[in-house]
Amino acid sequence: SEEARKYFRTVYDFPQWQTHRNQYRLMRRLFTIPQSHIIQNALPSILWVGVVSTSLAAYNTALDQHMLPDGFPSLTPNAACSAFITNTSVALSLLLVFRTNTSYGRWDEARKMWGGLLNRSRDIMRQGATCFPDDQVEAKKALARWVVAFARALRIHFQPEVTLESELKNILTPAELDMLAKSQHRPVRAIHAISQIIQSVPMSSIHQMQMSTNLTFFHDVLGGCERLLRAPIPVSYTRHTARFLFTWLTLLPFALYGTCGYAVVPVCTGIAAVLCGIEEIGVQCEEPFGILPLDVICNRIQADVMATLKDDADTKTILAEAGLSGLLPVSSPSYATANGNGNGNGNGNGNGNGNGVVMPQVSSTPASVPATMTVNISPR
Amino acid sequence: SEEARKYFRTVYDFPQWQTHRNQYRLMRRLFTIPQSHIIQNALPSILWVGVVSTSLAAYNTALDQHMLPDGFPSLTPNAACSAFITNTSVALSLLLVFRTNTSYGRWDEARKMWGGLLNRSRDIMRQGATCFPDDQVEAKKALARWVVAFARALRIHFQPEVTLESELKNILTPAELDMLAKSQHRPVRAIHAISQIIQSVPMSSIHQMQMSTNLTFFHDVLGGCERLLRAPIPVSYTRHTARFLFTWLTLLPFALYGTCGYAVVPVCTGIAAVLCGIEEIGVQCEEPFGILPLDVICNRIQADVMATLKDDADTKTILAEAGLSGLLPVSSPSYATANGNGNGNGNGNGNGNGNGVVMPQVSSTPASVPATMTVNISPR
Amino acid sequence: SEEARKYFRTVYDFPQWQTHRNQYRLMRRLFTIPQSHIIQNALPSILWVGVVSTSLAAYNTALDQHMLPDGFPSLTPNAACSAFITNTSVALSLLLVFRTNTSYGRWDEARKMWGGLLNRSRDIMRQGATCFPDDQVEAKKALARWVVAFARALRIHFQPEVTLESELKNILTPAELDMLAKSQHRPVRAIHAISQIIQSVPMSSIHQMQMSTNLTFFHDVLGGCERLLRAPIPVSYTRHTARFLFTWLTLLPFALYGTCGYAVVPVCTGIAAVLCGIEEIGVQCEEPFGILPLDVICNRIQADVMATLKDDADTKTILAEAGLSGLLPVSSPSYATANGNGNGNGNGNGNGNGNGVVMPQVSSTPASVPATMTVNISPR
Amino acid sequence: SEEARKYFRTVYDFPQWQTHRNQYRLMRRLFTIPQSHIIQNALPSILWVGVVSTSLAAYNTALDQHMLPDGFPSLTPNAACSAFITNTSVALSLLLVFRTNTSYGRWDEARKMWGGLLNRSRDIMRQGATCFPDDQVEAKKALARWVVAFARALRIHFQPEVTLESELKNILTPAELDMLAKSQHRPVRAIHAISQIIQSVPMSSIHQMQMSTNLTFFHDVLGGCERLLRAPIPVSYTRHTARFLFTWLTLLPFALYGTCGYAVVPVCTGIAAVLCGIEEIGVQCEEPFGILPLDVICNRIQADVMATLKDDADTKTILAEAGLSGLLPVSSPSYATANGNGNGNGNGNGNGNGNGVVMPQVSSTPASVPATMTVNISPR
Amino acid sequence: SEEARKYFRTVYDFPQWQTHRNQYRLMRRLFTIPQSHIIQNALPSILWVGVVSTSLAAYNTALDQHMLPDGFPSLTPNAACSAFITNTSVALSLLLVFRTNTSYGRWDEARKMWGGLLNRSRDIMRQGATCFPDDQVEAKKALARWVVAFARALRIHFQPEVTLESELKNILTPAELDMLAKSQHRPVRAIHAISQIIQSVPMSSIHQMQMSTNLTFFHDVLGGCERLLRAPIPVSYTRHTARFLFTWLTLLPFALYGTCGYAVVPVCTGIAAVLCGIEEIGVQCEEPFGILPLDVICNRIQADVMATLKDDADTKTILAEAGLSGLLPVSSPSYATANGNGNGNGNGNGNGNGNGVVMPQVSSTPASVPATMTVNISPR
Repeated sequence: SEEARKYFRTVYDFPQWQTHRNQYRLMRRLFTIPQSHIIQNALPSILWVGVVSTSLAAYNTALDQHMLPDGFPSLTPNAACSAFITNTSVALSLLLVFRTNTSYGRWDEARKMWGGLLNRSRDIMRQGATCFPDDQVEAKKALARWVVAFARALRIHFQPEVTLESELKNILTPAELDMLAKSQHRPVRAIHAISQIIQSVPMSSIHQMQMSTNLTFFHDVLGGCERLLRAPIPVSYTRHTARFLFTWLTLLPFALYGTCGYAVVPVCTGIAAVLCGIEEIGVQCEEPFGILPLDVICNRIQADVMATLKDDADTKTILAEAGLSGLLPVSSPSYATANGNGNGNGNGNGNGNGNGVVMPQVSSTPASVPATMTVNISPR
Repeated sequence: SEEARKYFRTVYDFPQWQTHRNQYRLMRRLFTIPQSHIIQNALPSILWVGVVSTSLAAYNTALDQHMLPDGFPSLTPNAACSAFITNTSVALSLLLVFRTNTSYGRWDEARKMWGGLLNRSRDIMRQGATCFPDDQVEAKKALARWVVAFARALRIHFQPEVTLESELKNILTPAELDMLAKSQHRPVRAIHAISQIIQSVPMSSIHQMQMSTNLTFFHDVLGGCERLLRAPIPVSYTRHTARFLFTWLTLLPFALYGTCGYAVVPVCTGIAAVLCGIEEIGVQCEEPFGILPLDVICNRIQADVMATLKDDADTKTILAEAGLSGLLPVSSPSYATANGNGNGNGNGNGNGNGNGVVMPQVSSTPASVPATMTVNISPR
Repeated sequence: SEEARKYFRTVYDFPQWQTHRNQYRLMRRLFTIPQSHIIQNALPSILWVGVVSTSLAAYNTALDQHMLPDGFPSLTPNAACSAFITNTSVALSLLLVFRTNTSYGRWDEARKMWGGLLNRSRDIMRQGATCFPDDQVEAKKALARWVVAFARALRIHFQPEVTLESELKNILTPAELDMLAKSQHRPVRAIHAISQIIQSVPMSSIHQMQMSTNLTFFHDVLGGCERLLRAPIPVSYTRHTARFLFTWLTLLPFALYGTCGYAVVPVCTGIAAVLCGIEEIGVQCEEPFGILPLDVICNRIQADVMATLKDDADTKTILAEAGLSGLLPVSSPSYATANGNGNGNGNGNGNGNGNGVVMPQVSSTPASVPATMTVNISPR
Repeated sequence: SEEARKYFRTVYDFPQWQTHRNQYRLMRRLFTIPQSHIIQNALPSILWVGVVSTSLAAYNTALDQHMLPDGFPSLTPNAACSAFITNTSVALSLLLVFRTNTSYGRWDEARKMWGGLLNRSRDIMRQGATCFPDDQVEAKKALARWVVAFARALRIHFQPEVTLESELKNILTPAELDMLAKSQHRPVRAIHAISQIIQSVPMSSIHQMQMSTNLTFFHDVLGGCERLLRAPIPVSYTRHTARFLFTWLTLLPFALYGTCGYAVVPVCTGIAAVLCGIEEIGVQCEEPFGILPLDVICNRIQADVMATLKDDADTKTILAEAGLSGLLPVSSPSYATANGNGNGNGNGNGNGNGNGVVMPQVSSTPASVPATMTVNISPR
Repeated sequence: SEEARKYFRTVYDFPQWQTHRNQYRLMRRLFTIPQSHIIQNALPSILWVGVVSTSLAAYNTALDQHMLPDGFPSLTPNAACSAFITNTSVALSLLLVFRTNTSYGRWDEARKMWGGLLNRSRDIMRQGATCFPDDQVEAKKALARWVVAFARALRIHFQPEVTLESELKNILTPAELDMLAKSQHRPVRAIHAISQIIQSVPMSSIHQMQMSTNLTFFHDVLGGCERLLRAPIPVSYTRHTARFLFTWLTLLPFALYGTCGYAVVPVCTGIAAVLCGIEEIGVQCEEPFGILPLDVICNRIQADVMATLKDDADTKTILAEAGLSGLLPVSSPSYATANGNGNGNGNGNGNGNGNGVVMPQVSSTPASVPATMTVNISPR
């Protein structure tokens, strides 16, 4: 059922891996078969095979013991069914292999994109903390807010079980939250906002470009996940496999009754459990967002982005103690000059024709703004 | 048939996925076999196998019951056919695996390229909205128009069922539409136009380069799709597989009649349905553009590009309220200075030798032009 | 034979795809088996199997009917051969799978590299048309000439059936053609020439870098194709597979004669046709350049590059009409200023120390040169 | 067991490869089976199959020799078990193939990421040694320290058997070590520190951007490894495979007893050893960090980074002797000018507005600082 | 044996391909089996199987003819061995598939990296020839020297059969050769040297960055090859496969003797030759550097790099004749101006504060240096 999908959102750490590798795992797994969500989900199909094989066995027993009126045909041993089963089992395995690999590939792609989102969220925050001028405190905070907001908006986009309100009301300002809520496409709007923040900061356009490259990556993640959601494996594949598998399983008891007798029931049910289980895993992984721990990833992004924001000044001080003069807390005028070196292209050039206008504006801005807003981000 | 290909243009959302994962899907699929487009397309081949096996069974029955004159040979049990069938079934599965995987790979590649087109269309519009100076309203509109025009021109290039006229008359100006219609290669021309728009805007060449990178991506998408269209899987593969499969299926009844008798008809037909179905899926996916929902992707591009264009000013205002001075709506002269900082390279440098000439020209342009053209884009 | 390889150079368009997907394709393929180039190429091996199996059947018949002197051994039923055939058929399929996939991978890689060459040729011409200053008419023409020349030189490098003379005498000037003809490595020289053209144009080094990135891609295409040509799949693989396959096929009649009798001839020949056909396809695709339509791709490159060169001015005018002031045909002085903004880094900086010298030089150059050369490119 | 995992941390060199390729390897391996860690780890499962098959054989013998009271059922030959075994062996191999390939893919991905870390650590140190101005000795040393610190912090993140203290106390200064130890996420903090170091150096922002690209790569490595650790192969796959394999192995003796008799014990144990061994390898490789020689890679990084730092001046001198004037040891004033050319953007621009202030500051810094800290890195 | 590995270093050209595709190749291969290096290498294992099967046949014959004392057990027909062989053949093929594909993947990766090294060596030389100012003759020569030196040092790193002395004494100056010989890690040092050369040339930092990107690629090639050398496929895989294969082959005669009699000797030896041959190929390809023609690639790099260096001036002249004024041999002062435009960022900016100092220095340097060194590179 749909609810069971949440149990697939596994997150491992070292202890879980040790259990995973435990020498007695094979035996333990044998005794927890009834708890398998996969088997539970595939139960209707397995039961169907059980019913068919039981009916077949009962019918044949009745026939053999003359409990049925004459004229009822004998259904087994059915050489035709055997011929069908034998000649198609390779093709069936072929289709199941295809399905298995492709679905896993989709799951893996989704996981990698969300992993990439984490990497690049940390990276863009690092770039912001490092490249934004020291006095652009508000811009750094806004960047942090919106990077988190993008990740959470993306989660809501693919796991609609949570709302924008609950996820983001502690992160964004009310006006920003309202803007995001009313957007035609929220993640696109969030990337746009980050882009505007970066563009608004006086810094080298080289650094702006590099941060913007991460936004392009965000767009690729967003669009890649949407593609996985919108475009399933060509449904004709899935349906042909399903039809084939189910026909095969339904004919199986007829092929085996001759040699197995009543044992056809456990044997066919067992085979059905194995094959329907594989098909079920393929179906579960095909839409991977329901079985990925997106909330854990979002929390990780938020924690790391906030930590980078918080530790920035600290890092500078400690490195400066180790002898890096460029990071020394300098007095305002000499700092502006140092920054003119670092950001070369932008400010340095501007100096030629009106530096007196530009720089004062920049350095005066943060002095007036910081008090107007408090970043309300609580790291989970 | 060709018409049936439109039914393969599936677009999924959460409800469809729930149906897709429904526990009773296997049973339901069993009863909708007659509606399968795959089976319908493969019908001639399946029928051929049915005819061959029926004829064989009838002939043998006639022979057994001495309804035929003497001298007609007995055709079964044919050990030779069995030997052929047995010794080649692995090779057959091998070729079908190859075909299945490769065709799916082509479908997947096409879908990824069109997904990438969506991602990068959003991205280039974001870059334009963010990096173009605020007074370049016309350039932003032109960028939006042509990004949409490129996507739609690309669709027409690969789904010639729609015309340039119907798709683009509400998007481009008549002169532009005429230019595009007369081009030797329309998508190439559209990318060229976007390139000219970007180059015409006074901004940092760093930002121009970054937007141009997305145009290179557009060229890769265009050429990649053309490659899939022009170059099928080496036809010798496809034909060898087809010949082999059909020979195999035609000989199959002779191999099975001995053990199955009249049941050879349903068994062989069933096996033919399974294998020809797989082959049919491979053939359908080999040219993927006919089975991809390109219209939905184009509409998505148009909606998102237009929304980004529309929301740009709004985003700036709201972010500015949150304390980002660089985005504050400033009076014209001080704005020009702020922009000089942001775009460093471009304007800042220009200041040295005639800034008084440049800037007024730029800021005066939009004032005079906007009225001359209205963007007639209706989001679908 | 070698000549037949040209028939593999397939180029598809919509009509061919419809034929390719035709519902009756399987039947039609059955009747065109004799025309298959694959079967024709594999004929010697198939015939060998036919001869072996016929001889075996004849020998055994002679033995059975005592037409041979005593003492000749009975060769069948040969349990040992059956054991060999049975126990190695999986390994044989394994090696054939490997060969099939790897050869197709090489074909696909070559096709993708040539497709990429088309994409990037269009792209570098777009960049040239857009980024080169308007007065650099000769540079644009030279860029177009050499991009086409690189593609054609690359074709000659991998399809030596055409000569440099025939391919390029209408494209390059005689001096350039002579230079290329005498080069130690022609494609490398062509890329070098494009590189020099780009470097010679006064423009932002950012744009130069971006165009140069495409040259790096050209180098990757050139080297990648050379790698495919120089380095076959490890020949020990190929030879081991060939030896194994041929031994297997030669022993097959001995294993099957016992059950099939004279039918061993068609059965073994049929199996040989299937397996040798697969092997033949693998061998044909391993060196992919002989079976790729490189001439069609080169013509496409030439047509698109020339169209971009021709349409450039036209595009600018039409876009300018739509309100883009940056593209308006301006008078010389104000244009120079606008360009100073666009190309920021380069010209803008230069203005500070001698702009009066730089710009006149640049704008005077094209005025004197254009008449000296005519671009003689005939689109095919 | 967990301890045995350390024996998998293989590092090869030419002699090991020669042993690996030794012609008698197959024979030698046969006699070292008891030392196989894989077999040892899978022992419980193998023993289970041994116990089951021995019990079965004993029970049947007892039954045959009437040593048991009447009424005990005969358990073999069990046609039903044979039917199950036969019909599912393809599906079992399918699942094992999937597991094998996927686990190896994870191992390979982890190895490639750590290899990439080595490559890019060398690369970023090369960039620092080359692009940092010559007088920024402290910055170069700090860069070397932190690149090594990042690699070692990453190792501790994935092999918690070593401590930060033991790994880094000879590398970082006490203040830095303390900062790193207290961080919420140590590798993220280390990348942040490298980023600050790069930003603090007066140099072209182009070069800063390029070094920063390597930091983005570091983030991708960090996040990619975390993904492998946090996200196992969907556990439903693993568990379904384990349950299936173990059921299959448990039923195997029942299927084989009929034909093999007492020999069922070695046969089933042998098959269990083969299949459980494959499963065990899959499980061991799934979490690859425990079986990768991360310490060797970290030592390599440290040695190469330190060597680059040490050899930098030497390289310059020797190249300068070969005629490269740009590398000649010049007197301070002319050097500053030459550097102004090389680093264009950064220093050149600064010259316009206060070069007299900037440069002295930069060149005076190293003079005062070097004595305050010694780099205590001992190459292992 | 180790010596035979050199015969695997195949380099193909068109004639070899024609032989490779020859229609009679299958027959020809059959008669050259004894020359196969693969079979020769696997001979000990094949002989072992021959000895086992001969002993078995002899023992059984002796037993049948009562040549042995009573009490010796009959060893065949051994149903248990048959059961083992049958039930594990799929798993065996599975492991061999894995090994085959993975080893080939490693070979392919190594070949692609060396191919990439060729591409990028040509590319970096093209960039140097184009972007270095015309008067930096020594820097161009040094670049060529060191690019070749890196490739050859890399070869020595992976094929230690040649020495640094023999490979590079004609390329580098004695001082440089000495420096390289004494380095802790030679290829790393060579990249470092190239990096210093690039940094020492007065040119736009944009172009420096782009050339540096190729150095990052060099680092990736170096590290990637080291990874292949240091990290074999997890040895537990290899050993488990070897043990399994050898056990399987040893038990095979016991399973087949019953049906084949004395023919068990050729049959088992044949199967051993096939399977051990596959395993042998896997082992040979696992460490690919010994079987790659690295010397041919190095010679190719040297020839192309030298040709680019030599043809540079020639190319410029011929292109200039075709009308490209930027390439005209101009007199010194006007050249400096043109260069100021092209290299924008660097020199242009510098002009503002001391251009008179910078430029003369640059143009005077080459005049004094060229005579001090001669490039002694002999193209092979």
